[in-house]
Amino acid sequence: MSGRDASWVLTSAVIIFTMQTGFGVLESGCVHPKNEVNIMVKNALDVVFGGISFWVFGFGLSFGSDQGTNAFTGVGCFFVDAADEVFGDVFAVFLFQLSFATTSTTIVSGAMAERVKLHAYLAFCIVNTFTFSIVAHWVWSETGFLHTMGAIDAAGCGPVHLVGGVTGLVATIILKPRSGTFDRPKKPTLPSPLKALLGMFMLWWGWLRFCSGSIFIVSTDEQWKSAVRAAVNTMVSSMGGGITGVMILSRFCQRVKYDVSTIINGIMGSLVSITAICTLCKAWESLIIGIVGALIATATDSLLWKLKIDDPVGVVPVHGACSVWGLIAVGLFVDKNGTLTLRGGLLNSGDPHQLLVQFITVICIIAWTLFMSVTLLKILDCTLGLRFEEGDEKIGADVIEHGVSVFSSWKTRNLQTIKRIS
Amino acid sequence: MSGRDASWVLTSAVIIFTMQTGFGVLESGCVHPKNEVNIMVKNALDVVFGGISFWVFGFGLSFGSDQGTNAFTGVGCFFVDAADEVFGDVFAVFLFQLSFATTSTTIVSGAMAERVKLHAYLAFCIVNTFTFSIVAHWVWSETGFLHTMGAIDAAGCGPVHLVGGVTGLVATIILKPRSGTFDRPKKPTLPSPLKALLGMFMLWWGWLRFCSGSIFIVSTDEQWKSAVRAAVNTMVSSMGGGITGVMILSRFCQRVKYDVSTIINGIMGSLVSITAICTLCKAWESLIIGIVGALIATATDSLLWKLKIDDPVGVVPVHGACSVWGLIAVGLFVDKNGTLTLRGGLLNSGDPHQLLVQFITVICIIAWTLFMSVTLLKILDCTLGLRFEEGDEKIGADVIEHGVSVFSSWKTRNLQTIKRIS
Amino acid sequence: MSGRDASWVLTSAVIIFTMQTGFGVLESGCVHPKNEVNIMVKNALDVVFGGISFWVFGFGLSFGSDQGTNAFTGVGCFFVDAADEVFGDVFAVFLFQLSFATTSTTIVSGAMAERVKLHAYLAFCIVNTFTFSIVAHWVWSETGFLHTMGAIDAAGCGPVHLVGGVTGLVATIILKPRSGTFDRPKKPTLPSPLKALLGMFMLWWGWLRFCSGSIFIVSTDEQWKSAVRAAVNTMVSSMGGGITGVMILSRFCQRVKYDVSTIINGIMGSLVSITAICTLCKAWESLIIGIVGALIATATDSLLWKLKIDDPVGVVPVHGACSVWGLIAVGLFVDKNGTLTLRGGLLNSGDPHQLLVQFITVICIIAWTLFMSVTLLKILDCTLGLRFEEGDEKIGADVIEHGVSVFSSWKTRNLQTIKRIS
Repeated sequence: MSGRDASWVLTSAVIIFTMQTGFGVLESGCVHPKNEVNIMVKNALDVVFGGISFWVFGFGLSFGSDQGTNAFTGVGCFFVDAADEVFGDVFAVFLFQLSFATTSTTIVSGAMAERVKLHAYLAFCIVNTFTFSIVAHWVWSETGFLHTMGAIDAAGCGPVHLVGGVTGLVATIILKPRSGTFDRPKKPTLPSPLKALLGMFMLWWGWLRFCSGSIFIVSTDEQWKSAVRAAVNTMVSSMGGGITGVMILSRFCQRVKYDVSTIINGIMGSLVSITAICTLCKAWESLIIGIVGALIATATDSLLWKLKIDDPVGVVPVHGACSVWGLIAVGLFVDKNGTLTLRGGLLNSGDPHQLLVQFITVICIIAWTLFMSVTLLKILDCTLGLRFEEGDEKIGADVIEHGVSVFSSWKTRNLQTIKRIS
Repeated sequence: MSGRDASWVLTSAVIIFTMQTGFGVLESGCVHPKNEVNIMVKNALDVVFGGISFWVFGFGLSFGSDQGTNAFTGVGCFFVDAADEVFGDVFAVFLFQLSFATTSTTIVSGAMAERVKLHAYLAFCIVNTFTFSIVAHWVWSETGFLHTMGAIDAAGCGPVHLVGGVTGLVATIILKPRSGTFDRPKKPTLPSPLKALLGMFMLWWGWLRFCSGSIFIVSTDEQWKSAVRAAVNTMVSSMGGGITGVMILSRFCQRVKYDVSTIINGIMGSLVSITAICTLCKAWESLIIGIVGALIATATDSLLWKLKIDDPVGVVPVHGACSVWGLIAVGLFVDKNGTLTLRGGLLNSGDPHQLLVQFITVICIIAWTLFMSVTLLKILDCTLGLRFEEGDEKIGADVIEHGVSVFSSWKTRNLQTIKRIS
Repeated sequence: MSGRDASWVLTSAVIIFTMQTGFGVLESGCVHPKNEVNIMVKNALDVVFGGISFWVFGFGLSFGSDQGTNAFTGVGCFFVDAADEVFGDVFAVFLFQLSFATTSTTIVSGAMAERVKLHAYLAFCIVNTFTFSIVAHWVWSETGFLHTMGAIDAAGCGPVHLVGGVTGLVATIILKPRSGTFDRPKKPTLPSPLKALLGMFMLWWGWLRFCSGSIFIVSTDEQWKSAVRAAVNTMVSSMGGGITGVMILSRFCQRVKYDVSTIINGIMGSLVSITAICTLCKAWESLIIGIVGALIATATDSLLWKLKIDDPVGVVPVHGACSVWGLIAVGLFVDKNGTLTLRGGLLNSGDPHQLLVQFITVICIIAWTLFMSVTLLKILDCTLGLRFEEGDEKIGADVIEHGVSVFSSWKTRNLQTIKRIS
């Protein structure tokens, strides 16, 4: 590693960290205003609690290489504080992975929105780091069994998005739907679409670096070209997703002409879908991957509504379903050439090997995440209790957890002021 | 190109991409709240539709060098997906230029705000890429006729801002004023100044990199020094603009002490004004350019009001008028020295050559843009119809296009809640 | 300096500049909505007025090295516009320091919120640059007396935060409390916690680069490793602060379960606390520094309330008290090893030397800042008048200074619309 790479990684870390803000703003636009402060606090605190647990044990489980490290888990580097000779590289990797780890947890916060107790959520942040870190070891560590098997996941489609999406699905099922959600004849529109769009924009720009920054080192020609390629593919894929989001609606789902949440899901879904393959495919393939991703996100969203699974922010369609597609897409489209001596995807080379590997990857990650999330969330539910009392839910998390409210405090004050002034 | 340059360009692309968000937020603060979601969606979708068209044909027209390339247009590189040997450089240029191309289109969205049909706007995004790309070829391609003539435009004053501003002027004239605008005795204040200011801040930080990032390569001493210079000049110019915005108002236009929209126009105007010369003048010259730019923006804004041209977001004063001044300022102030063997601006060397070249540049760009935008917008108006029905305009684009409304959905629900709680 | 370093510094400057936005948004969430536009304008204008004064004389006082430069002040480099041979390095330092200088001023804007006249504040922006620049010379210039004495302040804990915090304290005392503040039995909750949280997020990401970017050059191994270390320590410290903020409240201050402003103060306080030592301590030491910082911020906040000192945005607890702790912490924890031939902090080496140096640093900076801020603010108070008339304060700065109001303009219009539509 060199100063040039450090500069690259540090800038990546800052930009990826802006994605926490993006998730917070997007989610606060998707929930009832009586819960908007709470969801933003959650996004701040999962950096804090998820971050500290990643520092204490998560990084060690992912990238430790002391005695005891095996195909399933790393050992060592707990309380990350490497000796003077190597601290630069270790810290750089830690910082970058930290931004991935907290993203994985923050994704779940959306699925639990509007009805989870905050102290239960904080406990969840800590234990969820374990789920992520083990998968990160499998996929990215030299010794991880999925890595040695040849699984490809450039920028965290599996450890970040699939883990987040599956955990979100489990969480939303265990928590049960928000009261009254399925009494309505159809899905309501976004409570605050402007905030949701602002959050989407922040995630969009973050994603550009989320993908290209996953090329950790930019010293060799091979490396920086991959980084540039990742950025272009990310943009092209999101264009595919955006067009699909807009077109599907205008033509086929005539509920409203341009439904904001379908546009957001289309763009977000295509971004997740390109995450695994971003450095290793052509631009036009990215376009296809993005289009399919947006279709999958929209279809999954409708399916969840029919199954009466209440996912307030669209975590399962975007992060769950699209990350499965993203990992599978590697098996279809990955380049044949490259220094990685890849055999190529099924559609490029006719060889089903990579596709099989990616299937196994998906299954292993889903199985592990299901097992862990059901276990952890059930334990939390039995001990701390995950869900608000019904009365509390009606009043809203902002009042209950934080003693503030858009309604009870200044909005009513405002109303009085308005009446007084006008 | 090297890894260092790739890191520079990729970071530039992300930061410049945040400007899309800035434009969206600024514009949403300048329109009636019944249209705020719509304007943000437009800013997302012009990345998508403008982006895809730039990928399909725009980049090829600008920077293609296949057979048929001439002084007027490039040919080749359509559906950008270069062969393995060269993809790094091509993709890096593409990504950077993509952020410029979508900015050029997004500028126009402000001028069309509150009354344009969204599907007509989307069609416009696609065709407007053509207008931009040809001008980009003239100014930045080795073979472009303005480039060979010696025109200087460091960071897109012509292709981005002048094209955007002129197209915006044409668009707002063709669309006609928003109903009721000129029934009022004077210009109303900004509907949501906080959002407008937040958007301005985002554009401000983006501009720092918009200008310095235009030094595409930072390998040689000459190059990185130019990049640093561009950043400093951008800041100093915006200070000049900001002071002018504040002072003019406090002293001479006593409507209100510190009018937010004049401050915003002052700062934005000075940023546009420095865009062309940012790498090639002294800091104190930047200050003057910024001051003059702010004056021009404010004066043009008043003029438009008198001419009853309704420009909701100030596109014409800021991007149109100030980019003309920015291009002319090169002819006055450009450094004599430099590896570019410049003869220097009129005020530095007494030589009117560069000024003449810049005049020709302005005239060519305006002529082309007028021709293209009138043609394209008239065609769209006759086929798809550009403007909302009057009833729709009154109800607002958020309800009409997206089925959401700050008023009809949660604000009234809120009001009921407020009443219930209070 | 090289192209690599220039790329690093320019990216730092942009990211640190986003902190201005963060301060603006955080402050606008902490004030009554009738002043939210005004506080955002202030944050824009202190870039403009603070920036221009730093260009005219501030940078020269800090880093000038012409004849007359001494241990107390620099001379030269006024109207920064270096000759062609050296402009790159000078401009890079200027740009970076500019972002520090304007931050120092913007901190004060929070303490003066809701009752200061805007034109007095603008005058203050200009003169406050003097206070900052002299301290910056002491601490960072080769000839500065604190620098030669061995004072350590990696990223501006003294010149930026301590100067800002002390000036804020003086300003808020001279301005007197906002009318009615201490009539209430207890501190009110944040008027707009969502905005405050968004602002905190922006500052958080900015801080990552504020600290790591202070390693100005990343060419040698020593240097980039320090930058990476600074980033990791900043994150770990903020985790300590965040946990403390959450835990203190949940357990001991049972006013509300999770008070947003305590969480924000905890995280912000820990970020300030790590600023001085960020490149020179271990991660677990950062955690402790952050925890203590958050405790100090919360305690100081309560103390100010008891002393009836009205600090609307928490400037004194976060920037004042925590920066003292941050500078002292260097004397306790600083590494023994390092190319800087440090003797180590008291707790690492048993040697009280560095602690003594840091104490002297704190005292010198506080003494100077007290003297300057009392003098300057008293002069401004006697000439321009700092404080609003009482009637103006009640109406709010948005109406008085900018002629806009969330209440009087579109909110009432909205209400009418709501009534009409519903």
